[in-house]
Parts: sequence; C-alpha cells; structure tokens
Amino acid sequence: MDLKPTKPLSGFIELLPAQQRCFDYCADCMENVLISSGFSMLDLPAIERAEVLTDKDNWDEIETQMFLFQKGDTKMGLRYDGTVGLSRYVAGHLNNLVFRASQFSKRYRGERAQRGRYREFYQMDLDIMGINSLSTNYDAEIISVINRALDSVAKFIGPSVVLVGSRPFWDALFEFLDLNAEQKKSVFVLIDKKDKMGDADFSDGLTDALGDVNKENLIKSVFVDGYENFMNKSEKLDAAISELTDFMNLLNAIGVKNAKIDLSVARGLAYYTGLVFEFKLVNHPELGTAAGGGRYENLASKFSKTKIVGVGAAIGFSRIFASMLENNQIDLSSFEKNVNVAVLIMGQQNVPYAMNVVSQLRNEWIVAVPYLDTDKKFKNQIEYADKIGAQFSMIIGDDEVAKNQVALKNMETGDQKNLSVADAIKEMAK
Amino acid sequence: MDLKPTKPLSGFIELLPAQQRCFDYCADCMENVLISSGFSMLDLPAIERAEVLTDKDNWDEIETQMFLFQKGDTKMGLRYDGTVGLSRYVAGHLNNLVFRASQFSKRYRGERAQRGRYREFYQMDLDIMGINSLSTNYDAEIISVINRALDSVAKFIGPSVVLVGSRPFWDALFEFLDLNAEQKKSVFVLIDKKDKMGDADFSDGLTDALGDVNKENLIKSVFVDGYENFMNKSEKLDAAISELTDFMNLLNAIGVKNAKIDLSVARGLAYYTGLVFEFKLVNHPELGTAAGGGRYENLASKFSKTKIVGVGAAIGFSRIFASMLENNQIDLSSFEKNVNVAVLIMGQQNVPYAMNVVSQLRNEWIVAVPYLDTDKKFKNQIEYADKIGAQFSMIIGDDEVAKNQVALKNMETGDQKNLSVADAIKEMAK
Repeated sequence: MDLKPTKPLSGFIELLPAQQRCFDYCADCMENVLISSGFSMLDLPAIERAEVLTDKDNWDEIETQMFLFQKGDTKMGLRYDGTVGLSRYVAGHLNNLVFRASQFSKRYRGERAQRGRYREFYQMDLDIMGINSLSTNYDAEIISVINRALDSVAKFIGPSVVLVGSRPFWDALFEFLDLNAEQKKSVFVLIDKKDKMGDADFSDGLTDALGDVNKENLIKSVFVDGYENFMNKSEKLDAAISELTDFMNLLNAIGVKNAKIDLSVARGLAYYTGLVFEFKLVNHPELGTAAGGGRYENLASKFSKTKIVGVGAAIGFSRIFASMLENNQIDLSSFEKNVNVAVLIMGQQNVPYAMNVVSQLRNEWIVAVPYLDTDKKFKNQIEYADKIGAQFSMIIGDDEVAKNQVALKNMETGDQKNLSVADAIKEMAK
Repeated sequence: MDLKPTKPLSGFIELLPAQQRCFDYCADCMENVLISSGFSMLDLPAIERAEVLTDKDNWDEIETQMFLFQKGDTKMGLRYDGTVGLSRYVAGHLNNLVFRASQFSKRYRGERAQRGRYREFYQMDLDIMGINSLSTNYDAEIISVINRALDSVAKFIGPSVVLVGSRPFWDALFEFLDLNAEQKKSVFVLIDKKDKMGDADFSDGLTDALGDVNKENLIKSVFVDGYENFMNKSEKLDAAISELTDFMNLLNAIGVKNAKIDLSVARGLAYYTGLVFEFKLVNHPELGTAAGGGRYENLASKFSKTKIVGVGAAIGFSRIFASMLENNQIDLSSFEKNVNVAVLIMGQQNVPYAMNVVSQLRNEWIVAVPYLDTDKKFKNQIEYADKIGAQFSMIIGDDEVAKNQVALKNMETGDQKNLSVADAIKEMAK
C-alpha cells in the first residue's frame, strides 16, 4: 500500500509542541488584555451560508478566495474574516447588544498559497459598537488597547508603530478634484497599493487614471507635504483634516506615543468609512501589516434595519506568530520543556503507589508523567526521562514504597535524594 | 433589499457572552488538568486532503457525513475527528515523537442536524502513544486523567461513571462460537447499538444474523451473567477475561472508584483493538456518552511503516457543555457580569485624565470600560453602566480632575465616595 503524505496542505500551519506552547502563551497574553478591557470573547461558527458570505455585486472577486461547498440544498462556505459572522450575530442580538466583542478564531482563504500567506489562519478581532453613533474617542481606545495587546508580547515581537489614515480626507479631496466615480475607484486602489508598487508605477497609474498633470501632482503632493496645502479648500476637506488632527492630539494625550499620520493607509476596498489605521512591527517590516482596522458606518446592514456603527480591528495573529515561529525568530528556550518530573517505576507491583504520588504532584500543578511500561529496564526508563526533557525524575521501587518515600533525581545536576512526597514537592519548587 | 437570516445554520452553535465565558472557563479547567498530566496541546489544520480523510473501502459510508470540496486540482475536506490529523502529524514527526498529545478543536460532520447532534463541535482529545508496544497501565492512566478533567468541572456537570468493555473478549467469543466474517460484523454492530435498540430488537437481530438459538442465548447471557461462564473455554477467552479483570483491579488500586465492566461498550466500527471505555454523566443520561476511547494497535499505518500503538479518547466537549448551556442546565450567575467598573466622563476635556485612570485599572487586571460618548447626559451614562452590569461606576468630571480623584459608586448599594485612584482600586478589591 502506498503511504499517504504526512505534510499538511500548503498554506496550512502545523507547529511543533514547543512552538505551539509559545503561540498559545502569546494568545493568552493578548486575550487577557482584551478581557481586562471589557471585550466579550465570542466563538462563532466557521461555516456560514453562502448568501451570508457573498454579495452578488462582488461575487466574482471573492469567490475565487473562498472555500465554498454544498450539503443537500444548502450552499455554504468557510468564513474569510471575523466581520461577516459578527454582523450576523450582532443583528440577531440587538435587544441585548454586545458592545465590545472579540473573536480569536481560524479564518480561511482559498487563494494560492505563497510565502507568509496562509490559507487557514488565526486573527484576533476586536470591535466596539454602538447604535446610530459612537464617538471617535473609541477609535483612540481601540488603538490604545491594540498597543497594550502587542506590548504584552513585546519580548517576542519588539515595538510597533501605528499609522493613521483617513477615508474622509480622500473622499473630500476626490470631490474637490472633481473626479468621476471610475477615477475615484482607480485612484483609491492606487493609493491603497502605493507601498507595494513603487513611485514610478504609482505615477504611471495616476496618469492612466486621471490624464491630468495638475490633479496628479496634487495627489502626489499629499505624500510629500502632507495635508496642510489642502486646508481652506473645501468644507469637507477642512472637516476631514481637523478630525485627523484632533485625533492625533487625543492619541497623544491618552498615552499613545507611537502613532503617526500616513495617508497611504487606506485598508483596501473594505467597509471602512472613517479613520483607518495599521500597525507595523518596527523590527519585522517583512511581516507587513500586523494589525489593521478602522471605523465602519453600518456593520449589520445586510441583516437588520438598525444602524450599527463602530470601530474594529483585526490583529494578524498567525501572520505574526506563525511566521516568526516558522522562521525561528523567537527564542523558544522557555517553552522547550513541559514536564517537571518523570516518574519511573521499578516493578508492576509499585504502580498503585506511584500513581497515587502522581496524583499528589498533579494536584500541586506539577507536570508529572509516569513511565508505565514497568517491564522495561531502568536504563530505558531514565533515557525516557531524559528524552522528554523532564527537569527531575522520581524513582519508585520496593524500597521507596516500604519507606513511604521517593528517590528524586535532579536531571541537570545528577543529585539524587530519598524524600517524602511532601519534601520532594518542596524540593522541586526550589 | 431583503434582509439576510441572522440565525446560524442548523447544527451550528452560537453562545451568548455569559454562556461563552462559562464554556471557556470549563475548557480552561480541563486543559489545565491535561497540561499538568504532561500532554502537549496540538493545533492541527481543520482542512485535510480528501485522501487523508477517506479510504476507498469505506468511502460511501463516510462521504455523506463529510464536508468535502475542491480548490484547483486538490480535493479536500473538513476533519470529522481529531485522530485523522494526529495520525498524519505523528507519522511526520517520528524522529521526535510526541508521546502525549491533546487537541481541543472544532470538528465537522455534515450529517442531518438533530437534537443534541452538532455539525460543528468541539472535542477534547487525549492520546498516549508508543512505538511497537505500550502497557495497559496507560489505558488506566488515561481513564484517571479523564476522571480528573471531568471532576474539575463537576460543579457544573456532576459525577460521572466509566464503563469498560473489551474488543478482544468479543473477538475471542465470536471465534469460540465459530461465527463467519459476516456474522461477526452483524453481531458486533448489534452489540454496539444494543443500548439504543431495546432487548426485543436486539434479540430479533441476533436471530437474523445467527439463525442459531444456542449461540444467540450464549451472547445474550454475557449481558445477564457477565463473562464468568466463558472462563476455561478457550485460551483467547481466558486471556481477554484476565486482561479485563486485571485492568479493573488496577483502576481500583490507582484510585478510580467509578469504573465498572459493561461489555456492551464497543465503540462502533472505529479503529480500537483492545480495551474500550465510555464515560456517562450520572445526572445527565440524556447526553449519552460524554467521553469515549480505547486502545489502538496501529494509529499511523496509512502514513508510516512504523507501528504506533496507543490509547486515546475524545471528550465530547460541545456535546456536554453546549447542550447543557442551551438547555439552561448550568447556573450562569457567576458568569453574567464581566465588567468591574464603568468609567463615566463628564466632558471631552476630561478624556485624557480618564483614559489614564482606565490604564491604571487595567494594569491591575480590573476590567474597566470607559463611556466615551462624552456629549451624552449623565443619566444616559449611568444607564449604560447599569446595562452592562458593571459592579462599580467611576465618575470623572472637572472637580475630580482638579483634585486628582475619582468618584466611585457601588452600583449595588448606591454608595458613592471621592477617592484617589489608588484608594479606588483598594475599594474595588474588597
């Protein structure tokens, strides 16, 4: 019989145990920050009706990226982000609205796998929602919370910066420049991709889209001189500029010191309508955007007539941690060993005594692993203790049982002592 | 525009925040037991190649229950249990074999949804593995660990019992009764379904399968008189009976006091080859099997020529907790409130001071939620504090900022005091 492949499908992540312990530790650190900030952790289905995942008007674009399938008469698919499920959930629970929601869950994109692009990946979402209106103070709070979450794992990922952009600024500028709908869309896509395409291509793209050197230069000037030149041009421009300026001042006042304006941050064609932001890791530019989000005006419009506004973000958890773990960029030494003590048993007759000791150890949250192939030689048993990286081994034979003791061996120093179980627990706690 | 449905697909679980907190708490309790028992938590992909999920010889049976789809040339599907991925993973890491593995993850079965049957559900797996051989002492340890895991949430689910069966006993009895291959399979299926089908149907089934009153009565006698009558009939029967007897004695000796023999426990047509067991919740017979597992002889045979033997089990985590939560069988009072203090801010000018206070509170892991729509009246703000169930509200206006204080209001008693932030933290800790 041919053997089947042991590797996972490309684009799917599979960590080794020590890597997984680090991954889980980081998730716990960040989740604790979100919980202390009042976010309720939601766990929504990974499968949604196809009609929930897709809209007719952009079906073609999304379909190629989605895992879709049919069961009976029902067309369904795997979620590609956390927002689609949140929208549905929030609309279904309007009477008891969850104002702060977080989701740490797997999402799926069927795009062709490439370096750093996963087809199954974790994101950690956080959203603050309100009915009809919500102060931009909350946009500042979300950024502050993400900062704290990233700081909680800073020893692994280093410092971060947050770049703040504004959808209303571009909307107002496009209107001021009198662009038509098609031009608006083309230029917006160029701005969104500017970072990746280089200045020459960006310039060529603007020429193609606008065919107007003045307008082209005005748009390019935003990235050189900032928005100052556009003050006092139109009411909408003034409103967008003062929103952004006030927001940066607020961020600074509430202790966010790593934020700066970057009007090339646009967050693609997503549903954002106001301020938008992206986090980058200073020491890991190769990871691109570590987290991104912004303000939306009507989260649940497909599901309810109630207007849900809010600010939300997704932290690219797999993007950050799976990449860094796979590239050996994280020191795993503190995660390598998960067993405190291997309990080695000389003779089947001593299994009950030994398992009673194991229970006492586990009650004290000492990670204890018994070696229960009692017909194996002592040499095999101590090799096993060594192989699993146990800090101690505890040897239990007829003598130890007769004396109601254990022999505790420090696997690093080789020291061995006969002790009561209580004293052995104290010794291991040192 | 027609609004889309807000309910999840049938058979998919979606909990309310307080329910989710209880669910997550129980998962943490049980995971901590597994970690203290030396299990490494693995997180494997939910999507596998179709060839990994299916075998040609039983394709028809499994296919109807699986979510299968195709992307490009690759046929793939969602895992229906944790074992299929574990087999692949273990075979791929033989040089550094993970001897104890646990998985807490979502699995998928596309069967028609019915009460208590989920199409997306969590199971918590635990497996102890060895190369070529492994003592049945480990079967006893697995049962003991599951006991501890279930005990860690006993205040929600009550006590459990574990019923132990034996595949070798039935194999030996079928051989002693000289059944042909077809009869063996039919009778085994009947035994496996005996609990659900009632005595009359079981009897009729045996008559159909065997057409031999003597053999029929011998099989039925197992469920009345136990296995004693079958001692000294064949070597294989004696071996199976003494394995089971020794095992029950061992369980008792290592402190497992809730185990009994039940030879109707057979664990379906799965890959088990030795002792098998099922846990039932004493107070919740309606949930059926809460956990089940047993010994397997060759976990990774599809992936590797190395023989991996082991003992494994799956705890039906969603089956237990989602059912009990959905049926309001768990007292959620200790999970209803997740916010310690709502921070109410009188005037936009006081946002920086207030957010600084919020940071101090969160640093102490006090769950603090600021109300940042500062243009809203005090009445709206205090209603919000009440609505989110905050234990305290903290009011910050110009006076408090001037005095470097906060006004702390106990939402239950209505008491209100002006305090420094440090004293407010102490007051809330009381």
